[in-house]
Amino acid sequence: MVHPNGSPNGTNGVTKDRSKLIPFSSRLKEGRALAQDVWSIFNAANLPADCINLGQGYMNFAPPEWIKDAANDALNTVAASHYSHPKGRPRLRQALKKYYDPKFGRDLDIEQEILVTSGANEGQYSVFVAFLEEGDEVIMFEPFFDQYLPSVTFNGGKPVYVPLHPDVSHGKITSNDWVIDFDELRRAISPRTKMIIVNTPHNPVGKVFTRAELEGIAALAEEFNLLVMSDEVYESLTFDDKEHVRIANLPGMWDRTVTVGSAGKMFNATGYRVGWLIGPASIIQPTLAATTRIVFCSNSPLQEAAAAGLEQVVDRKFFEQQRKEYNERRQILIDCFDDIGLKYTRPEGSYFILLDISEVTWPENYPFPESVKGRGRDFLACWYIALEFGVSSIPVSEFYCEEHVNIGERFARFAFCKDVATLKQAAERLRELKRIVNKTSA
Amino acid sequence: MVHPNGSPNGTNGVTKDRSKLIPFSSRLKEGRALAQDVWSIFNAANLPADCINLGQGYMNFAPPEWIKDAANDALNTVAASHYSHPKGRPRLRQALKKYYDPKFGRDLDIEQEILVTSGANEGQYSVFVAFLEEGDEVIMFEPFFDQYLPSVTFNGGKPVYVPLHPDVSHGKITSNDWVIDFDELRRAISPRTKMIIVNTPHNPVGKVFTRAELEGIAALAEEFNLLVMSDEVYESLTFDDKEHVRIANLPGMWDRTVTVGSAGKMFNATGYRVGWLIGPASIIQPTLAATTRIVFCSNSPLQEAAAAGLEQVVDRKFFEQQRKEYNERRQILIDCFDDIGLKYTRPEGSYFILLDISEVTWPENYPFPESVKGRGRDFLACWYIALEFGVSSIPVSEFYCEEHVNIGERFARFAFCKDVATLKQAAERLRELKRIVNKTSA
Repeated sequence: MVHPNGSPNGTNGVTKDRSKLIPFSSRLKEGRALAQDVWSIFNAANLPADCINLGQGYMNFAPPEWIKDAANDALNTVAASHYSHPKGRPRLRQALKKYYDPKFGRDLDIEQEILVTSGANEGQYSVFVAFLEEGDEVIMFEPFFDQYLPSVTFNGGKPVYVPLHPDVSHGKITSNDWVIDFDELRRAISPRTKMIIVNTPHNPVGKVFTRAELEGIAALAEEFNLLVMSDEVYESLTFDDKEHVRIANLPGMWDRTVTVGSAGKMFNATGYRVGWLIGPASIIQPTLAATTRIVFCSNSPLQEAAAAGLEQVVDRKFFEQQRKEYNERRQILIDCFDDIGLKYTRPEGSYFILLDISEVTWPENYPFPESVKGRGRDFLACWYIALEFGVSSIPVSEFYCEEHVNIGERFARFAFCKDVATLKQAAERLRELKRIVNKTSA
Repeated sequence: MVHPNGSPNGTNGVTKDRSKLIPFSSRLKEGRALAQDVWSIFNAANLPADCINLGQGYMNFAPPEWIKDAANDALNTVAASHYSHPKGRPRLRQALKKYYDPKFGRDLDIEQEILVTSGANEGQYSVFVAFLEEGDEVIMFEPFFDQYLPSVTFNGGKPVYVPLHPDVSHGKITSNDWVIDFDELRRAISPRTKMIIVNTPHNPVGKVFTRAELEGIAALAEEFNLLVMSDEVYESLTFDDKEHVRIANLPGMWDRTVTVGSAGKMFNATGYRVGWLIGPASIIQPTLAATTRIVFCSNSPLQEAAAAGLEQVVDRKFFEQQRKEYNERRQILIDCFDDIGLKYTRPEGSYFILLDISEVTWPENYPFPESVKGRGRDFLACWYIALEFGVSSIPVSEFYCEEHVNIGERFARFAFCKDVATLKQAAERLRELKRIVNKTSA
């Protein structure tokens, strides 16, 4: 006998008679929720111990001392050891207001327009809980942050995919060369479209959406009365003086836009699980009702740490310094890829760089594991590079629907949120790729 | 024009033309998700500043030093500043195994049978996401922890209520006098029943379910193939040598039971948001798929703190000491209520005590606010006691469905998770209730 729904994650291999076991919800059968995801396949545990991990997007360095100090201070108070208000701690909401008022050009109401969440991820999930009706369609640009998909389907939504199209015709492309086909976007809108997800700066492309692009999206959102979820967790990480434009600030867009932020991404503290949503009361209040039931509130001590971060970040010129550091990190990989002679997308924001691996070759009989066989060509390339060259990355076709795998499988995503020494060592190893680049196909 | 769904929480009172605003999901219209909840009505902000808060169930004292030290140590490591595995940090899962193996009499598998969640609340929510199908029925005993209701309805479930019946015929009742009518429980089961929620020790009754009662529930769960969610967050808080029995340990029940635990409740750290689920792989693995999408992972530094707590709690005899302290706290309110001559339920577990307020009277023309008018008699009593005697409590009818309000409105819930000085001061104030007790109705 088998479990009525089959085996989730392939891991609950109990052998007893399970005919009476309670079936799990059909919602887990959609949105790849039970598929072996790319993070499990390219997990450090499956790779050689000395493989340098440029796959997952977390830092191998710590949050700044002054933020850790604030966390420690909070741990020593009774109040910050206990429940916070579901809206978030007043100090953090006040700090968010101080930081964001000038950015949004508004006098944000900390009671109704700011909501602290248990990481940006839970904030986004709560928006879907609060707004999706069974069968509502949600437009997402490909490649998309993989959590969007099951978060939508778990709440009855239907994902609709609109690919960004990379212009790979020339050698030196930037993230700005990944473009929206606005006719395609318009065609994707149906009477059931409820929401469109924007992600700028973009993971994994590094694209910083231009004002013109956001205006195009805004015009369609207005025309078809769509809610816009703008995931801007990498907002402080732009390069080459690229301007981060907020779609919420475009004329008429405040009332239909919720903007997503993250202390983890801002302050090198992905494990703090403190994020936030900013938007009009008509979006924030239903989302508050949702998050209150999902998590009740976010952890208190690290909300205080995030508050200290936002309170001091401007005076300390922290983001200016951070951008310089990330610029240096980015350059290490750019120089490396230039040396090898492989194409890549020069990112204008976030901390990812897409390497075009279409010219990377491997022996025909290479012993690939089952987990990467039958997936996009990028799964094989990433596996081969990790095993033979000692640097892991993430295959980008994972961030596309089945139909569009062919666009994604040309790329591997390398994260440069690592210290300089690690990146230099990774670059040294990656330079060996020269040996296996098939220049005849270039 | 008004918002298409009306005003959530009555708080988004924007005055502009909102005819085009995006409607929120119909799921928010069920399960009281947008009703002004009891916590908002009896919030400290609505009560006199010097009112002693025995309403909400959080402590006014800190977690132990050795747990805070572990949190601080974790803050100073890079690894514990970043993402944890969605299953939970290995150290915490190992500590949970060490603590719970003897309690469950099992060799728990930390990869498949233990799941760390962002508070017990999010763990329970994830179980509903993972197992509920549209229209599935979930049985909950009344009074019920209020979060269960919207967590069920948000995920398509239908709550079915079975009241615990208090025997109020005699003066000195204990939580053991709140009993299940097993015929009523059986009648509540339909072909759509998927799950039954058990909560022992019970909030707000303080009931510690007996082995016989749990055997009765288990027999029905087996007969009708039901999943059991056993919320045991107060497991370490029992009094009078009352034994905490785990329904998961009854014959045949492991395979259909998920047990819920909480570091916040165990270690006076409700703001840490670290909870866990323990159960068979067939329940834990689908729930892992759910929680991974909802929050991705729980915060890292406070998982390390919880791990330190569980690692040391037995050797330090922490719970033995904690029970003594809570016993003293409980006694302060018991003595007070005995002095006044009011009936109450002597709790055998958790940190709540139900005062029978049916004999408490107030002037006919007392100026009650709109928020408590038209609710159960207990809303009026709790408001009157808070305003006139300076001690807040929570009306228990909130934890019942409309149909059963008459059972709950006889009681007010007082939380004794406060320090001795605060409880003594509260008792001194409450003794003045003598003046308004209508002895003729006794």
